[in-house]
Amino acid sequence: MSSSSKAQAGQALWSKMPKANAELFALTYGSLVTELVRDYEDPIEVNTQLDRIGHSIGVRCVDELLSKADLAGLGASSTMCANLRDTAEVVAKVGFRMFLGIQAEVGGFSQDQRSFSIYLQENPLSTFVELPAAGDDDYQYGAGGDDLRKLKYSNLYCGVIRGALEQVNLKVECNIVRDTLKGDELNEIRVELKEVLSDGAGDDYKEE
Amino acid sequence: MSSSSKAQAGQALWSKMPKANAELFALTYGSLVTELVRDYEDPIEVNTQLDRIGHSIGVRCVDELLSKADLAGLGASSTMCANLRDTAEVVAKVGFRMFLGIQAEVGGFSQDQRSFSIYLQENPLSTFVELPAAGDDDYQYGAGGDDLRKLKYSNLYCGVIRGALEQVNLKVECNIVRDTLKGDELNEIRVELKEVLSDGAGDDYKEE
Repeated sequence: MSSSSKAQAGQALWSKMPKANAELFALTYGSLVTELVRDYEDPIEVNTQLDRIGHSIGVRCVDELLSKADLAGLGASSTMCANLRDTAEVVAKVGFRMFLGIQAEVGGFSQDQRSFSIYLQENPLSTFVELPAAGDDDYQYGAGGDDLRKLKYSNLYCGVIRGALEQVNLKVECNIVRDTLKGDELNEIRVELKEVLSDGAGDDYKEE
Repeated sequence: MSSSSKAQAGQALWSKMPKANAELFALTYGSLVTELVRDYEDPIEVNTQLDRIGHSIGVRCVDELLSKADLAGLGASSTMCANLRDTAEVVAKVGFRMFLGIQAEVGGFSQDQRSFSIYLQENPLSTFVELPAAGDDDYQYGAGGDDLRKLKYSNLYCGVIRGALEQVNLKVECNIVRDTLKGDELNEIRVELKEVLSDGAGDDYKEE
């Protein structure tokens, strides 16, 4: 299935999903990040917690995606995600559209075809957010004086992708490598395949 | 302005708001509640924290509502909320529709017209949630063995309403008095006017 038909299917699924207000969602996510920043002294630990929370959300989202995508004519996960390129497209064109209503692009495949990037022009999680500029002492926090700039505010995405792909037997590592909150032009999430887990939909990957 | 035209304006505003997926929103809210349950031993304290967080969200939501409602022909807050009945209708028909896309009803005004209820048939915050049944020992938590049933899962609403009305100079107390999560037929939030704060839009209330 082509990239554009995935995008169409993503749009069709998005139009049918029950909706909430994007601002309320962003504010609620902001409250979650704030709670974690209060709880943990180290921003790196906050990133880990956001990834953990995202993971459990991703596990639920992928179930929803697979059941709805089948109905939308995208086929079962084994067909839809026959290789990492297809899987990447499904995450970006179907997943991000269906759950956030935004357009995401895929690119930057490594030569061994085991890592790629997802590019987001918009980031609905970070509406209303400004992170402190580098060297702004007012924003240091915690016992170690660690800088809030180490916080990966949108790290939930990494956990969601990790959790979702784990359900289709792909163990990946995800990192936010560019971030509009930190002055980058767009948001880039780097996804690296670490292992194809045994049994199930992921088996096809071994043959490539 | 009549109740049905408020409902129409609410629907029109909702249709224009940027959207997120309601399930992702519910899961994110669930993560926030879970973090608070981890942090505080006492479910009553979790309720207080949810109310606090809701308050700061409500303060932002009301700004959005007032600026958009003016454009939608509902008028400024002083016209729109000339008395507590009107205000209640705006909260229910415009606010709940605009931010959650759901229908809320108003009723149960006290004789002194200082308290009322908001009724919600649906509760988008609690999708996927089940609270333990009374007497289910598995779900006791915390040092005091306090029962999770004391948790008011959706207490964010109370804070949001309190924060929003404070911005139009109405100091209210809010309580969830019926809850579908606890087996009630619908959700009922009781709102009680405690004080009309000095200056601004709330002044009209004093004359009643």
